[in-house]
Amino acid sequence: MALENIRVVLVEPAHPGNIGAAARAMKTMGLTQLILVRAVHFPSAEADQRASGAEDLLEKAQSLESLREAISDCRLVMGCSARARSFRHTLLNAREGAQQLIEESQNGESVALVFGPERSGLANADLDLCTHQVQIPTDPSFSSLNLGAAVQLLAYEIFLASRPDAPELKAVPNSATRPALQIEMDHFYAHLERVLEERGFLEGELREVTLTKLRRLFTRARPHSGELKLLHSILKLIVPGDGH
Amino acid sequence: MALENIRVVLVEPAHPGNIGAAARAMKTMGLTQLILVRAVHFPSAEADQRASGAEDLLEKAQSLESLREAISDCRLVMGCSARARSFRHTLLNAREGAQQLIEESQNGESVALVFGPERSGLANADLDLCTHQVQIPTDPSFSSLNLGAAVQLLAYEIFLASRPDAPELKAVPNSATRPALQIEMDHFYAHLERVLEERGFLEGELREVTLTKLRRLFTRARPHSGELKLLHSILKLIVPGDGH
Repeated sequence: MALENIRVVLVEPAHPGNIGAAARAMKTMGLTQLILVRAVHFPSAEADQRASGAEDLLEKAQSLESLREAISDCRLVMGCSARARSFRHTLLNAREGAQQLIEESQNGESVALVFGPERSGLANADLDLCTHQVQIPTDPSFSSLNLGAAVQLLAYEIFLASRPDAPELKAVPNSATRPALQIEMDHFYAHLERVLEERGFLEGELREVTLTKLRRLFTRARPHSGELKLLHSILKLIVPGDGH
Repeated sequence: MALENIRVVLVEPAHPGNIGAAARAMKTMGLTQLILVRAVHFPSAEADQRASGAEDLLEKAQSLESLREAISDCRLVMGCSARARSFRHTLLNAREGAQQLIEESQNGESVALVFGPERSGLANADLDLCTHQVQIPTDPSFSSLNLGAAVQLLAYEIFLASRPDAPELKAVPNSATRPALQIEMDHFYAHLERVLEERGFLEGELREVTLTKLRRLFTRARPHSGELKLLHSILKLIVPGDGH
C-alpha cells in the first residue's frame, strides 16, 4: 500500500498545536509516518489535544536533528513551499505532487513530503535537499496557509491519488534506472567536495556558492546508481587516491 | 466573480479557534463571506489569533440565529456531512460539490456551503434545509476532520473549480537560470569527451555507452549557462590545458 511509504517531515515546527493538527490531518487521509526535525516543543499536551484521536501518530513519530537524516533512504523528496522558485526544481502543484508521491511509493519505496517552519517556510538549504517542489494553489493576495492546513490539503490529494478509481498510475522505473537514494547522493557530494577541495577549487568566498550550485544541478538530475558510479570514476581522474 | 457569491455558514461552532481557522482557510482560497449561526463564543481573541491575517473576514462576518435566515436568498445550499447518505439528498464528493457551487454562483446567484458543529455535525433538521450533501473523502477508519480543515479542503476545491483553465504552475526561469542552448550543451559534451579521451577513460567497448550515459544525465539536469561554466572549470582540473 503506497500510503504507508509516504513520510511527512515537519522541519522546526514552532507550535505544538500544528503538530497535532498535522497528525490528525494525516490520519484522516490514511497517512501514518510523521517525522519531526528539531521541533520546538514536543511532545506536548497541546499537540495531543489537537491530534484529537490521532495521538498514535504522535507516539510513534520520530524526532530527528536534521532533514538529511529524515530523508537519507528516500529517492523522491518533495518540499512544500509557496516561494517562487528559480529553475532549480521541478515545480508541481498539489495534485501533480500527490500523484508523483503515490507513483513512486507504490512498490515499497520510501518517499518524503517536507514542510518548513510556520513563519518562514523551508529554508533554501533544506529546499536544496529536495528533489521536487510542490506548491498549493492559493489566492495570490493571501497565500498564508496554516501548517496543519497545508498538510491536510496535500494529504487529501495523496489519498485521492491512492484510490483505485484514481487515474492510471504510470509504470515504475526498474531498479537499474531508479534515482539513487539520498544517502548515495550524500556520498557523491562528499566525494566531489573532497576532490575539489584537494585541488584548491574551493578556496575563497565562493566555496559555499560553488558547492550549492553543484548540488542543485545534480539533485535536479536525480542520477541513478550506475550514473553515480560513473561520476565517482570521473572524480577519481581528478584525485586518483580518493575512493568513496 | 463566482467566489464572492459563495457564503460559508458555520452552524453552532463551539471553538472560537476553529472560526478563526475557517476564516484563514477561506481567505487563502479567495472566499470572503462568512456567516455564523449561534456561535458559542464570538467575537473572541482566539478566533482573531487563529485567523492570522484574515481578521477582516471575521469583522464583517454576520452572526445569525438560524440557518434558515442564513440561506433564505439562496437556491443552492450544500451541507457538508460525513453521515452516510440518506436518500434525501444528492450526494456529491468535495470536487463535484465545488464544481456545482461555482457553476451556480457564476451569474451572481448566492449559494451556501454549510458546516455543522464540531462534535455532532449537521443536525438532521439543518441537513433538511440543504439541497445537496457534500462529503469529503477520508480514510473510512478515521474520518474525523477538524472543522477548519474541512473548510480548508472545500475552499481549495472551490478555488480550483473557479479557474478551470488556470495556467499550470510553472517555474518561469529568468534569463540567468534558463537552460543552456543546445549549442552550449554540445560544447560541454565535446569538452567532456576530449578530457575523458585524453585520460584513457573511453577505451574499449564501453566508449559509446559511457558517453551516452553522461549525455543523458546532463541532458536531464538541463544546466543553465552558469552551471555549465562551473562544469567546464571542473573538467579543466582533469586536463588543465583544454579550454572550450
